[in-house]
Amino acid sequence: MKTFLAALTLSALGLAGTAEAQDGPFKNEIKARQGIMAYRALQLGVLGGMAKGEVAYDAAAAQKAADNLMATVTLDASMLWPKGSDNSANPASTALAAMWEEGSGIGDKAKAMMDAATALQAAAGSDLDTMKTALGPVGEACGGCHKAFRVSN
Amino acid sequence: MKTFLAALTLSALGLAGTAEAQDGPFKNEIKARQGIMAYRALQLGVLGGMAKGEVAYDAAAAQKAADNLMATVTLDASMLWPKGSDNSANPASTALAAMWEEGSGIGDKAKAMMDAATALQAAAGSDLDTMKTALGPVGEACGGCHKAFRVSN
Repeated sequence: MKTFLAALTLSALGLAGTAEAQDGPFKNEIKARQGIMAYRALQLGVLGGMAKGEVAYDAAAAQKAADNLMATVTLDASMLWPKGSDNSANPASTALAAMWEEGSGIGDKAKAMMDAATALQAAAGSDLDTMKTALGPVGEACGGCHKAFRVSN
Repeated sequence: MKTFLAALTLSALGLAGTAEAQDGPFKNEIKARQGIMAYRALQLGVLGGMAKGEVAYDAAAAQKAADNLMATVTLDASMLWPKGSDNSANPASTALAAMWEEGSGIGDKAKAMMDAATALQAAAGSDLDTMKTALGPVGEACGGCHKAFRVSN
């Protein structure tokens, strides 16, 4: 046990370093939140492919993707967005400091995502049109933050 | 709706590009799994700080961290580890192809993490010693994969 505790540094466990390490402040916070976005992108890719007709609608696969999206929306993110962890502190982040400003509306935007993902989860396994209708507000909720609080590329 | 569907590409939603984009094959899969590891690192950092006596034991905070760890262990990872998404395919990953080989024991290693995280979730909020005892096997489960299937730095 002592040996384990002595070794319990994140780097010793290999949790921090990667071939493409993001150094600088808040690196795990930034990596975690960007990874969750990438996870959502994978799930939305499944649903988007069906919505656009590139892939046949599959109720079970659509439901699974919507369930997975919801799991990341309900995942506790309280450690992921510390004030100051924006693009000016670490260029690995594309978050704008405006997100943390009073009156930014970030709470409403987060709620919009929660509501949209909840509705999508209820709709995804029904049929293609129902899923498509519920997918729209999710896309809008993504854009709600990305348009307002993201460094322009 | 049509406008949304037309715009439903991951890059249009700003889900794929970041200041530190991982290009190449499997970029979202790699980013997602590394992000989940970073999320776990944040939770283990909370528990490890208490275990090492750097931070006072706080039952509620310990429970929350263990709950969060468990949420990522139960998160569906079926899309995250496609065969071929190893370091030789994309250097952004540190995963070795050996992970996907017959007889690699990856299933047992994943089960070890599930068991350890489940036990930690049950123990974390009890008291410091109980949490510490349950934290050891989680560290071992981390190392089970990292030692066997990770590019040496």
